Amino acid sequence: MNISCCYLSHGHINGMAEALLSAGAGLVSVYDPDERKVEKFMRKFPNARVASSYEEVLQDEKVDIVLLASIYSKRAEHAIAALESGKHVFVDKPACTTIEDLERIRAAQRREGRKFGVYYSEHINVASSIRAGELVAEGRIGKVVEVTLLAPHKLRENTREDWFFRKESYGGIITDIGSHQIEQLLFFSGSSDARILTSTVGNFNNPHHPEFEDYGSLVLRLSSGATGYMRVDWYTPESFPVFGDGRLIILGTEGYIEVRKYHDISTGERDSLYLVNGEGTHHEVCTGKVKKRFFADFLSDCENGTEISMKQDYVFKVMEIALRAESEADVEGK
Amino acid sequence: MNISCCYLSHGHINGMAEALLSAGAGLVSVYDPDERKVEKFMRKFPNARVASSYEEVLQDEKVDIVLLASIYSKRAEHAIAALESGKHVFVDKPACTTIEDLERIRAAQRREGRKFGVYYSEHINVASSIRAGELVAEGRIGKVVEVTLLAPHKLRENTREDWFFRKESYGGIITDIGSHQIEQLLFFSGSSDARILTSTVGNFNNPHHPEFEDYGSLVLRLSSGATGYMRVDWYTPESFPVFGDGRLIILGTEGYIEVRKYHDISTGERDSLYLVNGEGTHHEVCTGKVKKRFFADFLSDCENGTEISMKQDYVFKVMEIALRAESEADVEGK
Repeated sequence: MNISCCYLSHGHINGMAEALLSAGAGLVSVYDPDERKVEKFMRKFPNARVASSYEEVLQDEKVDIVLLASIYSKRAEHAIAALESGKHVFVDKPACTTIEDLERIRAAQRREGRKFGVYYSEHINVASSIRAGELVAEGRIGKVVEVTLLAPHKLRENTREDWFFRKESYGGIITDIGSHQIEQLLFFSGSSDARILTSTVGNFNNPHHPEFEDYGSLVLRLSSGATGYMRVDWYTPESFPVFGDGRLIILGTEGYIEVRKYHDISTGERDSLYLVNGEGTHHEVCTGKVKKRFFADFLSDCENGTEISMKQDYVFKVMEIALRAESEADVEGK
Repeated sequence: MNISCCYLSHGHINGMAEALLSAGAGLVSVYDPDERKVEKFMRKFPNARVASSYEEVLQDEKVDIVLLASIYSKRAEHAIAALESGKHVFVDKPACTTIEDLERIRAAQRREGRKFGVYYSEHINVASSIRAGELVAEGRIGKVVEVTLLAPHKLRENTREDWFFRKESYGGIITDIGSHQIEQLLFFSGSSDARILTSTVGNFNNPHHPEFEDYGSLVLRLSSGATGYMRVDWYTPESFPVFGDGRLIILGTEGYIEVRKYHDISTGERDSLYLVNGEGTHHEVCTGKVKKRFFADFLSDCENGTEISMKQDYVFKVMEIALRAESEADVEGK
């Protein structure tokens, strides 16, 4: 399967391309209206051909999958155009910023029968997250009762373009980095749906960006019966060694798992996982020790029409919950 | 100030007595209708006189403060009788199990002008919790945006009496161990009140105790504007080195604090505190390094009519929020 990388407004495009290339895809082309973004991309991926328009990519028969990292509010339009050109789509999260756009994508995906994948990287591209899923599946903590996610991020304000701070174009903090977490709340509890019990957003530290939200949280009643809590924020100090001290805590009836995804503040390790159950406390560093199956599975799903990487309904359901939680949120701090 | 320890249904009575004796109180007497409970208490506190009835304690002019660790649903009745006999009261959490009982205690406290204290031990008797409060007060993490508490506990089922599993007598998991956490959500955010955004309870692992709740969680919109999340559960494996891996995480606009109160699964330390801010990551073990001021302050409050240990309204507000969150909770897993 061959890919083209289009609309490079978020650096995630690099991780998306690397992961699919490592899984066996070929890189055909790259497109962005901003030449500097294309030049930056070409430094990492010098073999890509530069397309002169998005239309050219969509007409290119060699392209099977279009990768998108557009300004968030433009992703739906770009994705639908790709689906309608017979391409599969792999889009950075969030896939879109409104329920109406989500419904348009859903309709286009059903009509065209192509795959629509979303890059929920904090799960599918993090070894310790994947390892946690394996341990849960092995029954090592009994039945999952609660999943908790703390997802702090560095703002790096001077690297962000203006659209990143306007609600219409970035969609809100739960839509954006919250959708990552919602996917994990569903996944680790074995759920396909959820009721939103509460959601909150606020702007506590960025009054100069009045439409920006720097904090969000929510509680879900997951369809498995478990409870899910997640918090997202943009307060991580610039000096912190990684982009954020992301944590995943899965509470089961017979034990729990804690994942310190990117930097364990006790040990300095990446992908640091703790398993506590009746057999004691077990610690492991997961980097390089698990297979990141999503990417090969997604290529195979595109090729064969299967649903092994993620079910299509599930991909949409995650965004639906995120968009609803965002629009219903209790607002404070503005 | 002299104390008497009455109704010894929870082992917290020992910690309550020890803390007040260390702060300068004298121990006058002990009372429980169950002789075995009195004998067990006397092994730790051999200088206590055994009272033959609760009435005898209440009539004893040498007793200034009555300490209570009754069956939870009996605490209100015992506390009100003590207040009406002119005694100050220091009761284990939860102070009571119904809103009606809380209102009766409130009325008695106001009428009699005595102190009514509650032993929120996970804050006032834990060095690392107290230290976290000092760091917040020093502004080390900026403005507090979220307080998160994870409070897992060992059930130790064979040590519990039947009343512990009956809703009428134990009051529910948010009423019980939740009230500890609610006090901390208020304290660490500098709040005096809160709106309940959601609360949940469930029985996921104890179907043989159908009225028992082994899981609870809630989200508060605190009066400071911050958000508070807490989770309580009874799933900690018996083999875990302490009663539970209690965590306190305080997120500020300029950093965060994580407290691993009783056992740091990375280092094995008690009272392990991490402070992360623009100056880096700082780790300290707090045992023995802070003053547990509450107890001397409470004795002084009783003696002088001050409100230094905790404001009386605040003590009641915590229980009010706990009881309302319990009664409104979304129920799953039964």
